[in-house]
Amino acid sequence: MTSEPLINADRLWTRLMALAEIGATPAGGVNRQALSDGEIAAWRRVIGWAGEAGLTPSTDAAGNLFLTLAGRDRTAPPLLLGSHLDSQPTGGKFDGAAGVMAALEAVVSLAGRGETPVRDIVVVAWMNEEGSRFAPGMMGSEAFTGERGMDAIRAARDADGISVGEALDRLHHAFPGMAHRPLGFAAEAYLELHIEQGPLLEAAGCAIGVVTGIQGKKTFQVVVEGAEGHAGTLAQQERRDALAAFAEVASALHAEIGAVDADIKFTIGRVTVVPNAPSVVPSRVSFSIDLRHPENAVLDAAGARIKALCQEKAPPCSVTVTPLVDAPSNVFDPRLRASIAGAARDQQHSAMAILSAAGHDARHLAKVCPAAMIFIPCRDGASHVEHEWAEPDHVAAGTAVLAQVLRELAFAPAIEV
Amino acid sequence: MTSEPLINADRLWTRLMALAEIGATPAGGVNRQALSDGEIAAWRRVIGWAGEAGLTPSTDAAGNLFLTLAGRDRTAPPLLLGSHLDSQPTGGKFDGAAGVMAALEAVVSLAGRGETPVRDIVVVAWMNEEGSRFAPGMMGSEAFTGERGMDAIRAARDADGISVGEALDRLHHAFPGMAHRPLGFAAEAYLELHIEQGPLLEAAGCAIGVVTGIQGKKTFQVVVEGAEGHAGTLAQQERRDALAAFAEVASALHAEIGAVDADIKFTIGRVTVVPNAPSVVPSRVSFSIDLRHPENAVLDAAGARIKALCQEKAPPCSVTVTPLVDAPSNVFDPRLRASIAGAARDQQHSAMAILSAAGHDARHLAKVCPAAMIFIPCRDGASHVEHEWAEPDHVAAGTAVLAQVLRELAFAPAIEV
Repeated sequence: MTSEPLINADRLWTRLMALAEIGATPAGGVNRQALSDGEIAAWRRVIGWAGEAGLTPSTDAAGNLFLTLAGRDRTAPPLLLGSHLDSQPTGGKFDGAAGVMAALEAVVSLAGRGETPVRDIVVVAWMNEEGSRFAPGMMGSEAFTGERGMDAIRAARDADGISVGEALDRLHHAFPGMAHRPLGFAAEAYLELHIEQGPLLEAAGCAIGVVTGIQGKKTFQVVVEGAEGHAGTLAQQERRDALAAFAEVASALHAEIGAVDADIKFTIGRVTVVPNAPSVVPSRVSFSIDLRHPENAVLDAAGARIKALCQEKAPPCSVTVTPLVDAPSNVFDPRLRASIAGAARDQQHSAMAILSAAGHDARHLAKVCPAAMIFIPCRDGASHVEHEWAEPDHVAAGTAVLAQVLRELAFAPAIEV
Repeated sequence: MTSEPLINADRLWTRLMALAEIGATPAGGVNRQALSDGEIAAWRRVIGWAGEAGLTPSTDAAGNLFLTLAGRDRTAPPLLLGSHLDSQPTGGKFDGAAGVMAALEAVVSLAGRGETPVRDIVVVAWMNEEGSRFAPGMMGSEAFTGERGMDAIRAARDADGISVGEALDRLHHAFPGMAHRPLGFAAEAYLELHIEQGPLLEAAGCAIGVVTGIQGKKTFQVVVEGAEGHAGTLAQQERRDALAAFAEVASALHAEIGAVDADIKFTIGRVTVVPNAPSVVPSRVSFSIDLRHPENAVLDAAGARIKALCQEKAPPCSVTVTPLVDAPSNVFDPRLRASIAGAARDQQHSAMAILSAAGHDARHLAKVCPAAMIFIPCRDGASHVEHEWAEPDHVAAGTAVLAQVLRELAFAPAIEV
């Protein structure tokens, strides 16, 4: 370990707070939608800071922002690290932005030391991680890794009818001189720092989470169809009451799927009843299912059981179960995780292994290169809220760990895959 | 029984169809809201027909319309018969209007025969039975019977912010010369014809339903309170999931309350989930309960059990059960029911005893004088829909039965109460 500081913690915090001014909400949060004027302004600010340290900006067809520190071998696959600059409509200062600024600070500090890495180092801000303006999210990393095609991505529209394609063209138009990279390139490794978005680090008093992986997620849309009737006249035994059937289905799902094991997460979060009038027997109930588990075998079995249970409990109503998201769990690279744990130990930060319950761009990067994530605590586990908060010490600790891992990789031979 | 026809069936049908032109919807239904221009126009048309037969219009503070045929003893309590002229927004031609036009036809036919009844006969159109513009309904009959005070009634507002008071003043302003009666007066008896709004008469092939009473009804608003959480991070055993608790409560209520006996009607018709987002554990579910039964003892016991079951099944969430409507069943006057059954028999119309599952103004009149109702079939049991339909023969049969009962009462000594 080097004896001089790996990062400038004051500069990092000052820049992170300055970035939070762009799209600031009156309640102290941030509203910085993907491809908006706010995100364009955030790009300009970040590009300015990167430029002072000699990093070169570029973009790609998916609107990802890359800031490159040149290495000795420009043809070797670069190290990639970053997160995203977009936020939820009533989001906070840290979700995404902390990861981009941590990556930039680590690279700027390294560059400031005058050492030239063996390969390029690229800070990245992925386009539309949140998915709040254009659904679904993680568009930039999915396009980069070939998970989704650009035609489908460009066709998505926001609530005002503006397409991603139009918004992307507008973004690129705002940076006319910027170099365009081909979409997707081989990377040596990917690192991402993020706030935990959960309460575990705070509860354990740990500054650093060594993320083991991202738990798998399946979502479904279920529709129970019955028949409408007058609440005062239709005999109980003649009814095909969609709400009564839904209650049976939901009760059975919570009891069985919710009790698979201690790691399962089962949620019915959205319910729509038709016609939803007090004196009318409901004809239709549609509802969402969100199912998560770190082990894919358990997730798959639970997912299959959901459909069977719905069909078992819905009669005399009919039921249709439509799968939407099907994202298996992933396990982050063991060597990168060991490097993160080692750096935390060196720097005397308390650390623990932690599973990411939420999705991140790193999920997609892990399919194409060794990838890992560093979590830092956030107050009360709250995120996607305006009072989202991470302590300056934790932001600095996570960034210093990231900087140490980066430094080890930047001067090491290629990782054997 | 008289050998000449008791009513003019063609005139009745023609007038009923002419009335349906006021507020007619493109799909063949009627939208004639309480105290609207449509209801004012309907008043003018009905008052005109009544005037041709010598009936005198009057109103009261509650905006009820009275059309009086003078009897020999003007001080004796009059016979009262009628229904309502307002409709649901996508209502039909018969719900309410058939009862007013049947009453008018019965009285006009009687007057046309040149006979003077022993007491006044008053056709009534009650204000705001439906409760769709101003909630809740049955305002006119509740004010008439002293069930609700005029201050509370006048304060209710429609979706545009117009109060019942303002709308009532506007109605009265539209009929400047009309006499005002004091609110509420002693009546000798009350009779109301109505479409069944259910499938029983049609299924049994009966033209006449001798209504035994109106089943009791209780409604409740239930709120289940839990705690919001992230669907991906909050452990299942840590959750206070309001939707999971609702499913337990609703499932238990349907299973137990819905199976009390063959006459119970139990409906959860409206459900509101907060925040109702797929990836958020719901913090709050509020829902409506509509409970009906012809026997008050059963209704009361089931109502009490609802609260206990909610409290038993909701934990770890909390629950509050707020009673709203509490309308006991009523039994219509046995002598009037016998008169209706006898008239149907005389006229060779098939008839059956039937319980009203829906509420009617007669519910309130039955508290202050002998009251009864005649039901006629409606196609497929459908009402509150634009394709609501009653056959001309059934409208005529019900009106002729009403006319015979009216004639018997009009020349008989007072009913002993």
